[in-house]
Amino acid sequence: MANITKKVSWSSRTDESGTPGEGTPLLNGSERASHSRQIGRLSTVDLEEEITSDEDSQRGRLKEIPHNEKLLSLKYESLDYDNIENQLFLEEERRMSYMGFRCLEISRWVVCGLIGFLTGLIACFIDIAVEELAGIKYQVVKENIEKFTEVGGLSISLLLWAVLNSAIVMMGAIIVAFFEPIAAGSGIPQIKCYLNGIKIPRVVRLKTLVVKVCGVICSVVGGLAVGKEGPMIHSGAVVAAGVSQGRSTSLKRDFKIFEYFRRDTEKRDFVSAGAAAGVSAAFGAPVGGVLFSLEEGASFWNQMLTWRIFFASMISTFTLNFFLSVYHKNPGDLSNPGLINFGRFQSDSVAYNLYEIPLFIAMGAIGGLLGALFNILNYWLTIFRIRYVHRPCLQVMEAMLVAAVTATVSFTMIYFSNDCQPLGPEHSEEYPLQLFCADGEYNSMATAFFNTPERSVRSLFHNQPGSYNPLTLGLFTLTYFFLACWTYGLAVSAGVFIPSLLIGAAWGRLCGILLASIPSNGSIWADPGKYALIGAAAQLGGIVRMTLSLTVIMVEATGNVTYGLPIMLVLMTAKIVGDYFVEGLYDIHIKLQSVPFLHWDAPATSHWLTAREVMSSQVTCLNRIEKVGTIVDTLSNTSTNHNGFPVVVQVSGSDEPAKLCGLILRSQLIVLLKHKVFVELARSRLTHRKLQLKDFRDAYPRFPPIQSIHVSQDERECMMDLTEFMNATPYTVPQETSLPRVFKLFRALGLRHLVVVDDVNRVVGLVTRKDLARYHLGKHGLEELQLAQT
Amino acid sequence: MANITKKVSWSSRTDESGTPGEGTPLLNGSERASHSRQIGRLSTVDLEEEITSDEDSQRGRLKEIPHNEKLLSLKYESLDYDNIENQLFLEEERRMSYMGFRCLEISRWVVCGLIGFLTGLIACFIDIAVEELAGIKYQVVKENIEKFTEVGGLSISLLLWAVLNSAIVMMGAIIVAFFEPIAAGSGIPQIKCYLNGIKIPRVVRLKTLVVKVCGVICSVVGGLAVGKEGPMIHSGAVVAAGVSQGRSTSLKRDFKIFEYFRRDTEKRDFVSAGAAAGVSAAFGAPVGGVLFSLEEGASFWNQMLTWRIFFASMISTFTLNFFLSVYHKNPGDLSNPGLINFGRFQSDSVAYNLYEIPLFIAMGAIGGLLGALFNILNYWLTIFRIRYVHRPCLQVMEAMLVAAVTATVSFTMIYFSNDCQPLGPEHSEEYPLQLFCADGEYNSMATAFFNTPERSVRSLFHNQPGSYNPLTLGLFTLTYFFLACWTYGLAVSAGVFIPSLLIGAAWGRLCGILLASIPSNGSIWADPGKYALIGAAAQLGGIVRMTLSLTVIMVEATGNVTYGLPIMLVLMTAKIVGDYFVEGLYDIHIKLQSVPFLHWDAPATSHWLTAREVMSSQVTCLNRIEKVGTIVDTLSNTSTNHNGFPVVVQVSGSDEPAKLCGLILRSQLIVLLKHKVFVELARSRLTHRKLQLKDFRDAYPRFPPIQSIHVSQDERECMMDLTEFMNATPYTVPQETSLPRVFKLFRALGLRHLVVVDDVNRVVGLVTRKDLARYHLGKHGLEELQLAQT
Repeated sequence: MANITKKVSWSSRTDESGTPGEGTPLLNGSERASHSRQIGRLSTVDLEEEITSDEDSQRGRLKEIPHNEKLLSLKYESLDYDNIENQLFLEEERRMSYMGFRCLEISRWVVCGLIGFLTGLIACFIDIAVEELAGIKYQVVKENIEKFTEVGGLSISLLLWAVLNSAIVMMGAIIVAFFEPIAAGSGIPQIKCYLNGIKIPRVVRLKTLVVKVCGVICSVVGGLAVGKEGPMIHSGAVVAAGVSQGRSTSLKRDFKIFEYFRRDTEKRDFVSAGAAAGVSAAFGAPVGGVLFSLEEGASFWNQMLTWRIFFASMISTFTLNFFLSVYHKNPGDLSNPGLINFGRFQSDSVAYNLYEIPLFIAMGAIGGLLGALFNILNYWLTIFRIRYVHRPCLQVMEAMLVAAVTATVSFTMIYFSNDCQPLGPEHSEEYPLQLFCADGEYNSMATAFFNTPERSVRSLFHNQPGSYNPLTLGLFTLTYFFLACWTYGLAVSAGVFIPSLLIGAAWGRLCGILLASIPSNGSIWADPGKYALIGAAAQLGGIVRMTLSLTVIMVEATGNVTYGLPIMLVLMTAKIVGDYFVEGLYDIHIKLQSVPFLHWDAPATSHWLTAREVMSSQVTCLNRIEKVGTIVDTLSNTSTNHNGFPVVVQVSGSDEPAKLCGLILRSQLIVLLKHKVFVELARSRLTHRKLQLKDFRDAYPRFPPIQSIHVSQDERECMMDLTEFMNATPYTVPQETSLPRVFKLFRALGLRHLVVVDDVNRVVGLVTRKDLARYHLGKHGLEELQLAQT
Repeated sequence: MANITKKVSWSSRTDESGTPGEGTPLLNGSERASHSRQIGRLSTVDLEEEITSDEDSQRGRLKEIPHNEKLLSLKYESLDYDNIENQLFLEEERRMSYMGFRCLEISRWVVCGLIGFLTGLIACFIDIAVEELAGIKYQVVKENIEKFTEVGGLSISLLLWAVLNSAIVMMGAIIVAFFEPIAAGSGIPQIKCYLNGIKIPRVVRLKTLVVKVCGVICSVVGGLAVGKEGPMIHSGAVVAAGVSQGRSTSLKRDFKIFEYFRRDTEKRDFVSAGAAAGVSAAFGAPVGGVLFSLEEGASFWNQMLTWRIFFASMISTFTLNFFLSVYHKNPGDLSNPGLINFGRFQSDSVAYNLYEIPLFIAMGAIGGLLGALFNILNYWLTIFRIRYVHRPCLQVMEAMLVAAVTATVSFTMIYFSNDCQPLGPEHSEEYPLQLFCADGEYNSMATAFFNTPERSVRSLFHNQPGSYNPLTLGLFTLTYFFLACWTYGLAVSAGVFIPSLLIGAAWGRLCGILLASIPSNGSIWADPGKYALIGAAAQLGGIVRMTLSLTVIMVEATGNVTYGLPIMLVLMTAKIVGDYFVEGLYDIHIKLQSVPFLHWDAPATSHWLTAREVMSSQVTCLNRIEKVGTIVDTLSNTSTNHNGFPVVVQVSGSDEPAKLCGLILRSQLIVLLKHKVFVELARSRLTHRKLQLKDFRDAYPRFPPIQSIHVSQDERECMMDLTEFMNATPYTVPQETSLPRVFKLFRALGLRHLVVVDDVNRVVGLVTRKDLARYHLGKHGLEELQLAQT
């Protein structure tokens, strides 16, 4: 579609403010060329994450790199979910007793418990902070409005409201845009990618977490059309990645615990648990959290792992619930399982009837249509942003503009609305605005706009029939739809769940009211809250297109199992209708970043492709005993920045290509070079310490770049014996293997490199994630994406 | 442990009554030898399922085969969940357009919908039949008791009750023991094995379904301590296996639809959906059903598949709900989502407090202990049964004895109980027995015994505090515990879920009553129903040891999300405590059948084993162009009944072993021989029809035995070209691969054969399921099971 110039992305930062102790921008090592380099088949090319900071300063600010979503970026590395079974690893495992494995298992449980607890605490902190700050803000504005309603001059109130909002949002936008751009948005696409096996730089760092938490508080308090639920998932993932490693690189603290977990395989498992704990805290939906993690992440389902994930989720929602109950001065009353609480639906009053199911399905279709519209608008907007709004200061200004516009629109809507409702004795409104209504009445438009979005959703679900008139709801839907669409993608931390629910609840309730006005025997259509719920599900499903997990999340948030079937039908319809037009919102954003995302299956019509066509055939192989100079040169070669190298054994004195005997990673070679594990040195220094797994774990995950390792000219002549360190049994496939078969092997085992061999075990190629992600099913059958160095 | 003589098993029948159209007993081809043959490393030996019926009659009735649970049976075949990507398959896939794949996808949805619908209907049929028949029975007995309470001579009532029960149970036991022994029990272990990849003969046949449904109705109506829930899972699986194949071999009808689904891969997916639909109908727990299928079956999680499974589950519970609402003359009132309905817990009255959680955990520990006791007793009983109660007539007599004893014990308990409770205006009892109570009162022991177990569970959950006195509950727990333990394993179709729940609910309520008697400020311990629920969860968890899925099933059956955390904690405690003593009930029964079951992970301490040690090295290889005589001889060799054959290519004129070029299955060779696909014939007859995938699909899954295929002496000299039919790209591993790595590959991809090659791609061994299942973690570290031909 659009061919746009890309300057802002998840993995490059246009501004690096030189954090102490880090100082290394990411993934931009070879981006100095100011023109595009589209490399056809060199798909094993990965760039190392860290380069030295002096190179960074040479980087130009603006790089014009043609980019569109038909490209696949080469700058994203993969994670390695296949254990590197080299001799060191096997020796360690063999030394370990049965009790040792038991202890490991127990510490996994402890870590999951900790993850759940901390995630719950963070959710609790966000909730309380938003509650308190928003309370102050709305109180100030309300008093101001009440003052000026009497004396006239409400424009001053408007100004106050807009300025307050803008100022708060500005703070949130500044920390995100200037300090940690990866913390923008909900973080769900990034976590999806991480669990899929893609290394998104800095996505699970402590700094990201801090910025995310502060950012989301600012955006919600600032009155944007956003929710605080999506960011919880990201926060949970960061907590998990931090806790499970037993150290913080940012804080330079190593607690010397959980060292066994310092590898991609284990870390991914914990990040799944963290994401689940986040969902669980956000929606009070522990089962939904588990299903979310599995839907997005799992390639290989493991019973114990799932059970641990569930444990983390339960602890998380319980922690949140407990601390909120203490905060609400009602300790022990566990009635706040999540950040958003749909409130209790009385199952008697809102049981559905069989003949309502077609209505629900129709609403699902509407949700799918509106969701597709939302996504298309947001897609255009995102492209616009990538092209024109890429400087941090512009991003901050846009966020402030949106905040001001949101306040203005809200105010205008409230001002011109004359929908007054009597204030009941036990009104659920926190800040009822009387405005021009009679005494004892309140402005019903204000309940929707002059409130945190969570409260608005709850009002729409549960307020008595007649609390809103249809015009109010229609106008609200319309304005909020565009506001939410504009807001998503701003440089602020914010989720799209709650705005979607709110839009859906509004038009759903509208549907309910319209149905109730049909003359009939009365009672059956009476409850608009039910339709608000269905509408909310339809709208959310139409935008994010999640399936099973979303159904369960909605059911758990409702606290009522009765709605399972209608919600499932609605989500399914919304997904089918929406998918006809455009993908889900998260997938759009993933695609716009050109991330090599692997879906569940290979494209249906890809059986005619074989490994021979898919693989990259310019494979750099190393000998089992290799010259240090060769290794350094190979690693330093920026044009072919390979990350995995098949290790081969040359048949002595023959000319034919050597046979495969292992696979070694760049990161391992770097550690070997750093510790100077050379054959000659081992011989001369008898006391030379043998390299251990610990040395690799200490370097994980931020391996130094090759440039930072000094190798003298003498040392270049030494030899390195890779036998002990290479993975001696890499998975291989023959050249004739069909793409779906390669795909299945790759995906099921979470591989990073798959060696293609011929019939006598000689290396002929290497398949990596990008080789597989290149093929996707377009409108006209199988399409191949271009690889690009962007 | 026990070294027992085995005569009854899932896969051998001591009685074959010659069903028309089938007439082929199973897996006993080479069991004529009356002594044990323990074969050490020949683990690729599988026996074909079907042998000709004249061989069957030669089989002796009693075979004394030493057997214990440290053996691994060689008679179980594996299913092949890896697609056989031969040229025929690839050609078909390549011919198929994108629309073709869409149509396939749609038909998958249609099939899943049908599976859900039919499973729901079956559940409905069982429920109504049980309701009606049990109603008649209890009414007759009640009237009789009332008559004789006045005039004396209640022993006649006892006799009537016992005889009625025995007669009904006899019918159920006869059809199971004589017609379809595989229909005995709950069927859950068998479905677990099927989903794990083991071919349990006749487990998904129509006849099994019919016997199962009739059997379960008889056992429940016959008043045994059993439930109708477990069998629903098996029924759902049979429905799925039948519907998805578009034909019934038993009925000899082929609808010529869904032919694409006639292979293990697709069939397994549908059986997962069927099992989920069964759980869903049984407990009204669609999400629990999905999780059950995943926990037991999935090796590779696929989003679309999961969503389809969920769809089947939803349809199933909805169908049941709808038809039951029609039956209850309340169409449209969807309040019966499952066969067992825990009733509505009012969340206000039974919310739990923080300080109750330690109590819940303690109850979980009690559940774990009692569950372990139950399992150990049942284990001994099962061994006793295998040794002594193996003739069908003995089995029927045992079932009748249990029925009579159950009635007698129940009657005695009711008779000697003097726990009278006032009959409330809106009593939940269907058949209140007054017996010796005053007018307007009823015997409280009778509500527990004189009732279907489902109703008893509901009474224990919801009856007012004070409905039961502690002695009643204690006695009931004690007797029902032993009755249920004796009942499980009888030759009747019956589940263990409901008895477990009932035992747990009884002692749980007892705990609640005892706690309430502790002097305190009164109201907090007031509700014994809550403790009944926790007790039920603890007891069930202690017996079956399911985790995530059981939590969700319990939560969905309760209809209340609030109980998530306590139920999870209780189930976790029960599992930990129970696992310390003995495995779960289903696993015990699987182990006693010596099934080569693959768990999630390789044993923890197995890293020192490599493929070289694990593999079986006597591999029969075939040449790519092989003499028909050789193939026939290889297949007919009963001592090495291999099922998969690596295909090799000989380097011309050299002596060294040939290189691997493919893998072909016994079933494929059989079809080739049957259609006489010989090189010479193809040359002579130019019009010779090319063999198509359809021919293989038509033969699936009951491939004829090699003995039934006639090959003349001339034909033996012909050659067969396997190139087109073999899987040209089998997965391979080098000899040095560690066991966990082999295991992961095998399990993640659902393989049946994994070829082990050396560094120049020559076949050195073959790893099959039995080679991996042999190793398990015992009390003293890694143990190796013996392979046996039993």
